Amino acid sequence: MLAARAAKAGGFSCDIPADWLQGRTAFGGLSAALALQAASELEPDLPPLRSAQIAFIGPLSGEVTVTAIKLRRGRNAAFIQADVASEAGLGLRATFVFMAALPSALVHDAAPRAPVAPPPPDAKTFIGPDTSFIGNFEFYDHKDGLGPAEWRRWARLRERGGIDAFAELLAIGDALPPAALKLIDTRVPLSSLNWQINFIDSAPTTDDGWWLLSATAETARQGYSSQRMTMWNAAGDPIADAMQAVAIFG
Amino acid sequence: MLAARAAKAGGFSCDIPADWLQGRTAFGGLSAALALQAASELEPDLPPLRSAQIAFIGPLSGEVTVTAIKLRRGRNAAFIQADVASEAGLGLRATFVFMAALPSALVHDAAPRAPVAPPPPDAKTFIGPDTSFIGNFEFYDHKDGLGPAEWRRWARLRERGGIDAFAELLAIGDALPPAALKLIDTRVPLSSLNWQINFIDSAPTTDDGWWLLSATAETARQGYSSQRMTMWNAAGDPIADAMQAVAIFG
Repeated sequence: MLAARAAKAGGFSCDIPADWLQGRTAFGGLSAALALQAASELEPDLPPLRSAQIAFIGPLSGEVTVTAIKLRRGRNAAFIQADVASEAGLGLRATFVFMAALPSALVHDAAPRAPVAPPPPDAKTFIGPDTSFIGNFEFYDHKDGLGPAEWRRWARLRERGGIDAFAELLAIGDALPPAALKLIDTRVPLSSLNWQINFIDSAPTTDDGWWLLSATAETARQGYSSQRMTMWNAAGDPIADAMQAVAIFG
Repeated sequence: MLAARAAKAGGFSCDIPADWLQGRTAFGGLSAALALQAASELEPDLPPLRSAQIAFIGPLSGEVTVTAIKLRRGRNAAFIQADVASEAGLGLRATFVFMAALPSALVHDAAPRAPVAPPPPDAKTFIGPDTSFIGNFEFYDHKDGLGPAEWRRWARLRERGGIDAFAELLAIGDALPPAALKLIDTRVPLSSLNWQINFIDSAPTTDDGWWLLSATAETARQGYSSQRMTMWNAAGDPIADAMQAVAIFG
């Protein structure tokens, strides 16, 4: 996809492949990863990504233009904004915070480890249809002991060679359906409004491409749900904390 | 403060009063509330605020200019961006999502109620020095049964007449110190990098101005901490979920 892109001022343009669509719009994790690509190319010597704030402003499909601007780069932190736009207008705006690991006397880690082990090599995994973004992932679901609006699922990209770890994590991190979907008729349309994801580790790694995703909606009413999300690697280490606001149309 | 402001294209300019400073910069909750004010005035018929993503890009003091632009307004949701800038450049960028309560068959509420009751009328509360932003608040701290990097504190604005509920919640919602501060020497500088806050209720109310704040840092290392935050009203109902990324300089 990026191989066929065209350079533009401050970024590039490319086509959203049909197999990365989620309904009428590009899968949000893909659009976020494209935004990160433009941000990374704007300032090639950026420190690691530590946090991303993403607004899913409108639908994106067909040819998109991905551009980045520097908001501020100080001694430690760099704030880079990246947009993904199509003929229909601005679809995604991301504000990325990059920051090097700093010398610190403080080492605190009280985060829960992954509650379940990664899939065994012979696990029967789920691969979605090739006609949707879901077909780009392999999933291994856990259903036991969860709340009524909670998902817990191992996920990996089927093609992941040469992909930057943070781009991979953005693509994977948005791959669960909204947690509120578990409570309702699957034909009710839901739409993520935005997403913040904080990366706990400045150099995240895993084994065999597996990352564990968890999402929980504590509330869903008036067509609106706030959900909290967590990611772990195959060793069980916490990798990211996240949250989303979700609109429910029905 | 807003009484003395001057209209500008797309917003207004005003002076940050010295008693709203937090070190060398305006208190983040105040800057966020100013951004919301500009957003609300850009589109006077906006539905309720449901989520805010705020990037604390740089320091703000003295005269600031607050401007808003519409990113997209659809049938249900409106995305409005607002900036706060000073002579030193862009200090804060916020992306607000406004959305009306939608008819929905789904009513789910598994969120924990407030774990402690609001302060009694004769409670001995804490009011900070008038020379810092802390002097604008009244606090009532709970210390028992908390984790090593966890705060739990009732807070209210001392002057809160005529303030929009969401502006009040933005000002209050950033009033706790970073949770990681509890683990370290208080002379170590910490700085919130960003903030997402989701409003669970489309018409939040409380009694006597009190809102309960909770913040927990599960991890803090390499000069970086990700923290989760929650707000409740005096009746114990959940009002907001939030998270921040925090930089630790030492």
